[in-house]
Amino acid sequence: MPDLPPLTLIPFIDVIGTFVFAISGTQTAIDKKLDPFGASVIAFATALGGGTMRDLLLNLRPVWIQEELLLVTVFVAVMVTLFFRKQIGRFRRTLFLFDTMGIALFTVLGMEKALRLDVPPLIALVMGVVSAVFGGVVRDILCNEIPLIFRREVYATACLAGGASYLFMRLAPVPVGVPVWIAVGIIILIRLLAVRLKWAFPTLTPKE
Amino acid sequence: MPDLPPLTLIPFIDVIGTFVFAISGTQTAIDKKLDPFGASVIAFATALGGGTMRDLLLNLRPVWIQEELLLVTVFVAVMVTLFFRKQIGRFRRTLFLFDTMGIALFTVLGMEKALRLDVPPLIALVMGVVSAVFGGVVRDILCNEIPLIFRREVYATACLAGGASYLFMRLAPVPVGVPVWIAVGIIILIRLLAVRLKWAFPTLTPKE
Amino acid sequence: MPDLPPLTLIPFIDVIGTFVFAISGTQTAIDKKLDPFGASVIAFATALGGGTMRDLLLNLRPVWIQEELLLVTVFVAVMVTLFFRKQIGRFRRTLFLFDTMGIALFTVLGMEKALRLDVPPLIALVMGVVSAVFGGVVRDILCNEIPLIFRREVYATACLAGGASYLFMRLAPVPVGVPVWIAVGIIILIRLLAVRLKWAFPTLTPKE
Repeated sequence: MPDLPPLTLIPFIDVIGTFVFAISGTQTAIDKKLDPFGASVIAFATALGGGTMRDLLLNLRPVWIQEELLLVTVFVAVMVTLFFRKQIGRFRRTLFLFDTMGIALFTVLGMEKALRLDVPPLIALVMGVVSAVFGGVVRDILCNEIPLIFRREVYATACLAGGASYLFMRLAPVPVGVPVWIAVGIIILIRLLAVRLKWAFPTLTPKE
Repeated sequence: MPDLPPLTLIPFIDVIGTFVFAISGTQTAIDKKLDPFGASVIAFATALGGGTMRDLLLNLRPVWIQEELLLVTVFVAVMVTLFFRKQIGRFRRTLFLFDTMGIALFTVLGMEKALRLDVPPLIALVMGVVSAVFGGVVRDILCNEIPLIFRREVYATACLAGGASYLFMRLAPVPVGVPVWIAVGIIILIRLLAVRLKWAFPTLTPKE
Repeated sequence: MPDLPPLTLIPFIDVIGTFVFAISGTQTAIDKKLDPFGASVIAFATALGGGTMRDLLLNLRPVWIQEELLLVTVFVAVMVTLFFRKQIGRFRRTLFLFDTMGIALFTVLGMEKALRLDVPPLIALVMGVVSAVFGGVVRDILCNEIPLIFRREVYATACLAGGASYLFMRLAPVPVGVPVWIAVGIIILIRLLAVRLKWAFPTLTPKE
């Protein structure tokens, strides 16, 4: 079982991803006119919901239960977003980029975690996508919306495509670590293209 | 601890039930005008949500995490439903029958699974009903509806009645296996009668 | 690891809290015009949802899976509420008091449970709050509302404040047991004051 080489980077990645997702959750809560406590819960669910669902399904205790760093990260992100509400608006493009990187990394890390527990490849792919997108689903459920991802976002598909490529590359005799970054790159690329070129699946209609 | 005799049938039953539930989930997604990805998630949640919740509560890893067959079944059901949308509409009656059989079998299998883990009988009954109906609850939450089951469906009650009969029969010295089929029959019968005779609990009203 | 002294009281407390929360869940279901089955599910989710979520996160089997008492308690509470609908309306003030006590006790018991599993203090605080308030969140999601707690209730904050005080006191060399009751008192006090003095966090607004 190959070691993920950027192992030393992983906590860092987790923290960055958590931070960015928590900002996006807080922004949604502000849009919904919740109070600061509600904003914290939404931020928490957005940032840690995906990994939590993955770990519950794998019958593990979620990572944030073991160490306080991720919880503190969410809290800091909420504070920053509340205090610098207007300024953060100007960084939407940067945030979008971080968010895309977060989703890409969470997909691959989630898959790798599942594969190391001897979960079959196809299920590991689902675990990766769940890690990346389930937080956003919980956020939308808590805010009483049909999850955005079911309606117009291509990004779950980007995660699926990148994740599938990772499965294939892992079979090949390429140096360990390369597949991680290629898969991450594919996910980022598809999502950026999808947004720029306005890709979207056609909506299903009953009488088509 | 008696062995469930139709043990060789169980994977088959699981697959049929999963297939039918996934079709129903996909149809709901089409009615809600989701995209194909959203339809897949709804189908997945409808088909596997009940068993997943049961297994999480029993502190087990859900079955579909261990083997890919159920996931593939959901995927095939989604494809079939999307491509044969109109034709499937004509089979509503057949699908309803399969759905009823699925619910009945999931109830009994879910109970048996819990009983074998030494869960107390009453809780095992709840686990059976959760296996059968929770997928539909998740489907409705994801589609931003008050779950249908809370409003007009008698079928959870059918599951409760059949499940309770199963608990009693399991105490009796009847040949192993007989209780399974009687309980399944009771659930199917109650649901069919309920639909045909339009049984429904009265809605609760605050000032009754 | 200090023993919680009121250990003999804990089952009693659990049952009282479960009973009161189940009444509140049933009342919500009546307001939403659900049927008796729906009311039972909402009551169940309200009463046991918090502890269930806490136990799932801690990778334990929820308490109500092991023993039937709590399930029976919910059932009795639903029956009582349905049959004495009008009379119970008159006890709203008493119910509110019990509810407040339930939340306070669930917070401290939930924290203590987590701390004994060597969960870090800050996470244990979250586990305590989750035990106390998550049932209400599930109730509101099932009823298709934005959870009340995200909008105007101060009580999650009361749980946080009382829970934090408990963490500090547990470090101090005070007799075991004292911290439990002080923390419970703080939570009750804050919530009562909040309701009486109409404390509420300001709602967040996008352009503040």
